[in-house]
Amino acid sequence: MFPYIFRYEISPHISVYLECNEILHSGRSSFQKIEVVESLDFGRMLVLDGVINLTERDEFVYHEMLVHVPLFSHPDPLKILIVGGGDGGTAREVLKHEGVNRIQQVEIDREVIAVSKEYFPSLGLALDHPKVNVLFVDAIQYVTDTEETFDIILVDSTDPVIEQSEGLFTVPFYRDCLNALTEQGILAAQLGDISFEADLVSAVFNRVKEVFPIVRIYLAPIPSYTLVPYSFAFCSKTIHPEMGLGLSRFVRSFQTRYYNPQIHQSAFVLPEYLRKEFEN
Amino acid sequence: MFPYIFRYEISPHISVYLECNEILHSGRSSFQKIEVVESLDFGRMLVLDGVINLTERDEFVYHEMLVHVPLFSHPDPLKILIVGGGDGGTAREVLKHEGVNRIQQVEIDREVIAVSKEYFPSLGLALDHPKVNVLFVDAIQYVTDTEETFDIILVDSTDPVIEQSEGLFTVPFYRDCLNALTEQGILAAQLGDISFEADLVSAVFNRVKEVFPIVRIYLAPIPSYTLVPYSFAFCSKTIHPEMGLGLSRFVRSFQTRYYNPQIHQSAFVLPEYLRKEFEN
Repeated sequence: MFPYIFRYEISPHISVYLECNEILHSGRSSFQKIEVVESLDFGRMLVLDGVINLTERDEFVYHEMLVHVPLFSHPDPLKILIVGGGDGGTAREVLKHEGVNRIQQVEIDREVIAVSKEYFPSLGLALDHPKVNVLFVDAIQYVTDTEETFDIILVDSTDPVIEQSEGLFTVPFYRDCLNALTEQGILAAQLGDISFEADLVSAVFNRVKEVFPIVRIYLAPIPSYTLVPYSFAFCSKTIHPEMGLGLSRFVRSFQTRYYNPQIHQSAFVLPEYLRKEFEN
Repeated sequence: MFPYIFRYEISPHISVYLECNEILHSGRSSFQKIEVVESLDFGRMLVLDGVINLTERDEFVYHEMLVHVPLFSHPDPLKILIVGGGDGGTAREVLKHEGVNRIQQVEIDREVIAVSKEYFPSLGLALDHPKVNVLFVDAIQYVTDTEETFDIILVDSTDPVIEQSEGLFTVPFYRDCLNALTEQGILAAQLGDISFEADLVSAVFNRVKEVFPIVRIYLAPIPSYTLVPYSFAFCSKTIHPEMGLGLSRFVRSFQTRYYNPQIHQSAFVLPEYLRKEFEN
């Protein structure tokens, strides 16, 4: 009926089929297959190694929640490290915080940035902002070597099932991140689907718990990723997210589509069956 | 690969395919086609006119949220009316509130109850409890005619797209419900998916707003229904859900898998793009 059906798996026994109009781009970088697909209901989609990385319909939920939850938890975030995030959506949201004066982005795949600038300019062009400095190196090596410290580290990677991202979900990587954070530093990372990827989420949660004094899970629905709420990890040295130390900045700053101060608090409320597993 | 694929639509351009082992039951009542299907990841599923009505994997979310949110918002619910709910899951949750002394259930389709008792006994057998009285009549006629009043009315129907449920989503029906509620009465109803069924949810929301002084939307993820949070309407004469007038009963009562007092509050927190539409 439509020229192209994009299929993705929620689990080995559940698949979603999206009707699409066309494949706008299909290429292969040194690291991964990169496609841009125009779907009817999710709009334009960035697909990396066959996995939806973002869609026009719901990328705002993912990027707002990855960024604003840690940034509004911090009293005064100035220096931000973005690991991955080549599409530019995370940088776009960070730039809305006027106090931020430097964004260091470490993206291994130059080609993702080029494709995003062409097909998702409202995201990709954020990387041209003078506050953003992009390094095309391996983030694992970067956090080992860097002598800089950051107020916030945002891990905006592909899933750990994808080879070049595996190292971003390990204890040594988290230890290096901890060392690269200032005293009130916070790391936020995407974790996964809390139901069909429950084992993966648990495993990564236990690794960050080994490293960070404070670890909390927070949730947001990202329909192009999965059927159930998607989870993020909030990891810090001293700050609890409910303190909302930066929330006073919210009202006078910028408009959001998903995030607001009530969502900031309620995203950390877990259903009873998860609370037992993830609350300390 | 598997003997049977169950397909359902999230929208005209998005479908979900579930691998299934077998069709355990397939029949047709005077009102609808009734099937019981064994799926690999959602377990056993009750399917009415091709639409998933409940699954073993996630029915607890739906039933706990439809029932406990209004019942724990009320200081002392004694008499409950359940509209529809032939599978018995709603009655099962209401019965956990020991103070309830009478459940009037009005289910048009006797066959749904028979099938549920056979294939979903942990739900269906709740209807045999001495506090439950089931009438096999049209709920629309029942609420017009009844001279009884109820503390809580739970509308646990199929979607309004299905013919025999249409009348349960109209202003006259809601007016009759209002009249059948006590002074502190609350009606809760399932609404639909807040994204792919946004027009339907808005339309029904506006109808209940015409009738009830207090109307609030609350959300919970029910993955077998759709990709985004599913919405419920909380409608009352005087009580606001945040007051949590019955929450003191929670700790000493029973175990839940999804609901808890923090979920009670946070389920009413809407993302910014919905807040503008549904908050008064």
